[in-house]
Amino acid sequence: MNLNRLALYLCVLSTLVGICWADDLLPSWTDAPSKKAIIAFVENVTNKDSSGFVPVAERIAVFDNDGTLWPENPLPFQIAFSIDELRRQLPEHPEWKDDKFIQSALAGDIAPLLADHYKGLFHLVAVTGSGMTTTAFAARVRDWLVTAKHPKFAKPYDQLTYQPMQEVLAYLRSNGFKTFLVSGGGSDFMRVFSERVYGIVPEQVLGSHAAVVYELRTDGPVLLKTMNSLFVDDGPGKPEAIHQFIGRRPIACFGNSDGDKAMLEYTTMANPHPSLGVIVHHTDSEREYAYDAHPKSSGKLVAALADAPKRNWIIVDMKTDWRTIFAD
Amino acid sequence: MNLNRLALYLCVLSTLVGICWADDLLPSWTDAPSKKAIIAFVENVTNKDSSGFVPVAERIAVFDNDGTLWPENPLPFQIAFSIDELRRQLPEHPEWKDDKFIQSALAGDIAPLLADHYKGLFHLVAVTGSGMTTTAFAARVRDWLVTAKHPKFAKPYDQLTYQPMQEVLAYLRSNGFKTFLVSGGGSDFMRVFSERVYGIVPEQVLGSHAAVVYELRTDGPVLLKTMNSLFVDDGPGKPEAIHQFIGRRPIACFGNSDGDKAMLEYTTMANPHPSLGVIVHHTDSEREYAYDAHPKSSGKLVAALADAPKRNWIIVDMKTDWRTIFAD
Repeated sequence: MNLNRLALYLCVLSTLVGICWADDLLPSWTDAPSKKAIIAFVENVTNKDSSGFVPVAERIAVFDNDGTLWPENPLPFQIAFSIDELRRQLPEHPEWKDDKFIQSALAGDIAPLLADHYKGLFHLVAVTGSGMTTTAFAARVRDWLVTAKHPKFAKPYDQLTYQPMQEVLAYLRSNGFKTFLVSGGGSDFMRVFSERVYGIVPEQVLGSHAAVVYELRTDGPVLLKTMNSLFVDDGPGKPEAIHQFIGRRPIACFGNSDGDKAMLEYTTMANPHPSLGVIVHHTDSEREYAYDAHPKSSGKLVAALADAPKRNWIIVDMKTDWRTIFAD
Repeated sequence: MNLNRLALYLCVLSTLVGICWADDLLPSWTDAPSKKAIIAFVENVTNKDSSGFVPVAERIAVFDNDGTLWPENPLPFQIAFSIDELRRQLPEHPEWKDDKFIQSALAGDIAPLLADHYKGLFHLVAVTGSGMTTTAFAARVRDWLVTAKHPKFAKPYDQLTYQPMQEVLAYLRSNGFKTFLVSGGGSDFMRVFSERVYGIVPEQVLGSHAAVVYELRTDGPVLLKTMNSLFVDDGPGKPEAIHQFIGRRPIACFGNSDGDKAMLEYTTMANPHPSLGVIVHHTDSEREYAYDAHPKSSGKLVAALADAPKRNWIIVDMKTDWRTIFAD
């Protein structure tokens, strides 16, 4: 074989490898515009010759959790945990018979918990997530994840992450991005599984939280979970938390509801870098759920959907854009 | 040259390289017990064959800033910034003539600001650090760092970091550690210079902070700095902030005052991993400052120093343990 022919073979080979590699990107996605937009964005910001190149340290991507990385139906999973905790602890708390939110939850009547910006839901989360050490709380969540199963999918909750989004997380990280959870769920709840399930380390988890109190006990230091100074990481709270915890603007943001609208704006509007805003639209009643304006519990998507065209936010149609929904 | 002789040469060469490398570790430190303790700790937790091995993801090191990575005399640098800001803004604020803390500060009378857990100092920080966007505040700090000079050392404040501590930061990072600032200074203040000066990215800076408020303006999203929900990242606030922001216990902690005592306890007591607690003791009145029980402003060191022996915390004697104080 002469050298020219060898060069030709190598060229063909490398092209084939390149095509295969491109096919391997986000394999659970169909060849939809959403997939193409994500890949085009990543290729632009990581290309040193592109005017849109972004240094590695500034490649910050933020992800909502409930409804974006795993379902939030029929209830956000942390609410399912809280209700299971209420049942478990009920015998020790006779005073709960006078608590209307707790009684609603135990009766499976969720509507009253949603009024007034989910006031009842946060109350449940607070009741079942305070008055113990952070270590004791984490142990309860860990136990629950082992035993509880989702009512529709009959699997442990942490086995219900969306495979296409797992691929996006891995794809971004392999391109130098730091991936953060920015979610209305509790930080202490999400940190129990975020590293194992998403590969997101605890210091990259921003969630709702209340004050903890340091105490030095004879067997060592502990932090007590309280209900004071509750911070709700939703709506405008999301860019506020991003500033407090991350301290710079993300360039990529993935959400699924109006609670993510402010975070999408903060990521994509007047950002000196190229940016990507993505909304996961729940359109698949068979394989998952279909909702936007009228969700069963959380996840209302109206204002962000209306703004999407003028903000150039990408809409992911779960039914058509995702070949598979759940990680196996 | 035969192969045996080549192998011998290579062995001698690699040994020499090894010795030189060891000599290069922390070159601004004398051969003091403190240096040896830091190196022994790092070698233990990074050695896969050691029972004390710690996986990379759990190698979290936390550093106080004022008095630990740079001086806090004659005033913490952020207070110097605040007083300069008061002077600059004075013409626009006639109402400040009735503010006793502001009048004290402008008169150079610092003592009244220190009473009641630094109440006056926090007031100054709030007055000069709220009521503007986070971007505007960062620009002010940036301007100040360019123009202001330290009264004793006649250099810009951000050129006064401790060279031996810069070496510790780099040494830990080269061994897989993530380095965090955990300081009473404001997050928004420290993030202006932390990446450039210490190599610590904004998302690894934990400081005092108050609520920011998200607002979508016609020219883009902003965050307004307020004085609400002030969180003081000092004393027990440090382990509390570490939990909220990092979500797991550090294995190495560097501080210099009683304000770091809780963070040292949280790092070193009943930690399942090996851990390191280090206190920088200001003993060098010529090259820097000498103080512990009676500092000029912040930096009191009594309780933590008393606890050091029983907690196995390492004391760094700045005068004897550091060959040089400042980075050049």
